[in-house]
Amino acid sequence: MDPLDRGFTLGDGLFETVLWADGTLRRLDRHLARLTAGCEALGLPAPDLATAEALMQQAVADAELGDRRAAVRLTLTAGVGGRGLDRPEAISPEMVATAAPAPPAGGSARLITAITRRNEGSIASRWKTLAYMDNVLARREARAAGADEALMLNNAGEIACASAANLFWVEDDGRLCTPALECGALAGITREAVLALDWEVAEVRAPNSVLSTARHVFLTNSLIGLRTVAELDGRALAPWPELERLKAALT
Amino acid sequence: MDPLDRGFTLGDGLFETVLWADGTLRRLDRHLARLTAGCEALGLPAPDLATAEALMQQAVADAELGDRRAAVRLTLTAGVGGRGLDRPEAISPEMVATAAPAPPAGGSARLITAITRRNEGSIASRWKTLAYMDNVLARREARAAGADEALMLNNAGEIACASAANLFWVEDDGRLCTPALECGALAGITREAVLALDWEVAEVRAPNSVLSTARHVFLTNSLIGLRTVAELDGRALAPWPELERLKAALT
Repeated sequence: MDPLDRGFTLGDGLFETVLWADGTLRRLDRHLARLTAGCEALGLPAPDLATAEALMQQAVADAELGDRRAAVRLTLTAGVGGRGLDRPEAISPEMVATAAPAPPAGGSARLITAITRRNEGSIASRWKTLAYMDNVLARREARAAGADEALMLNNAGEIACASAANLFWVEDDGRLCTPALECGALAGITREAVLALDWEVAEVRAPNSVLSTARHVFLTNSLIGLRTVAELDGRALAPWPELERLKAALT
Repeated sequence: MDPLDRGFTLGDGLFETVLWADGTLRRLDRHLARLTAGCEALGLPAPDLATAEALMQQAVADAELGDRRAAVRLTLTAGVGGRGLDRPEAISPEMVATAAPAPPAGGSARLITAITRRNEGSIASRWKTLAYMDNVLARREARAAGADEALMLNNAGEIACASAANLFWVEDDGRLCTPALECGALAGITREAVLALDWEVAEVRAPNSVLSTARHVFLTNSLIGLRTVAELDGRALAPWPELERLKAALT
C-alpha cells in the first residue's frame, strides 16, 4: 500500500468484512450493495464489483483455509492524489482484499457502556469507513473493564450500536427494538437482514436508560451472526427465548 | 505500507504535519510533544522521537526541495496485529515520513458551515488521528459550495474548528475567542502558540450564533500560519487590524 494513499493518510475509504463459510461469501450481494451505496454517499466513484469479488475470492484461495470459516475483508480507498483534505479531480480508487480464519463464536458477551461516543452528526457513522478510531477506543475501554464489547451512545445520550456490532433489545412489553441509523448506528448487513424478515422490529431513537429495564439484549454482525448479551454494565441479562428462532429465520 | 497495518485498516494512528522553512522544521519540539501526548491519550506506546526526527529530515532530503517551503508529514500507526478492533498485547508502532512542497499561502478564506459535525464525545477529536473522514466530508461540502474551508460545529451546535485549521474570532467588544478543546476542537500547534502569547484569549464553548455578530474571524494551522476569513456563509468579514501584530509575535 502506497504511504500516500488517502485510505492510509486520512481514513478516506470503506471496507466490508464478509463471512466465508461452506464455500461461499455470505450475503456478498448485500455487502457489495452497501459498498456501492457508501461510495455514493461519501463521494467516491462506484466500485467495480466484478473486481471486488475476484479480489475476495483470490484472498480466500491464497489463505489456504481448507474447511475453516474465514473473515474476508475488502478495503476500498480514495487512492493517491489531491492536496491535504481535498480529493483529486479524478479519483482512482484502490481495492485490496485479505482473508483470515474467522474469530471463534465466543459465546455470550459482557458489555460496558463506553465513554467514547458515536458521531451522529456525520453520515460517515452509517458506513464502514476506514476512520474507526472511535470504535478502537470504545473497545479498548471494554477490554480495560474486563468486558468483551462496548455499547456506544451518541452525543445526545441515545443508544447507537456496539463497537463492532449492531445492538437489539427486547423491551418489557416484548417489543424488539434497534437504534435508527440517525442515532449514529452503522448500517449493518445482519441488522438489515433482521429488519427484512417478517418480524416486527422498531427502529427507534432511545435514551440509554431504556436498557436498564430491557429484558434481553443481543448483538449482530456479519462474522458472529447473532450473539446474546449476558451482562450490561454489571447487570445480568437472560438470553432471549426467541433468539434461536430468529437465527433459523436468517439462514 | 502493509495492508494489514492498523493505520490503514482502522485509522489507528496519529500524524503530524510540520512546516519546513529556512532549513528548519518549525516548532518541531511542540509537534513531537503533541505526538507523544496523543499516543498516551490513545493508548499507543511512546514514540521514539530521535527516529521520528530522523525520518522527517530524511524525507526532506529525499524530496530535493531546494529553498522551497515544505509540508513534512510524519505518520505513526499501531502497526500490524491484534484481532479486529482489539490491539495486540505488544504494539509495534510503525512510522513513516513524507515531504512535499508546502501549499501556497492562498490569501484570505471563504468559509461555509458544514453539515458534517465534529465528535465532541470522543477524545480522538483533540488529536490528529488517521481517522479524518469527517474532515474530508466537511471540506468536500465547502468545495461543493465554492468555498475554501468548512467551519465544523459539534453535535451540540457549538463552534469546534475548521476542517484543517483552528478558528479564532473577535467579538463585538474586542474579545479574542477560540473554542475550548471540549467542543471537539483539534489541539492545534499554532492554536497552542497563540494561547501561549501574552495576549488575552478566551477558550469558550460558544453556539454558532456568536459568529453572526463576530467582527473578525481567522484560521490557524502549522502550514498556513494565520489566515484571515473574508467570508462566512456569505457574510463579508473585515480583516482584523491586529492580525499582523499577532503574526509578528508568533515568529
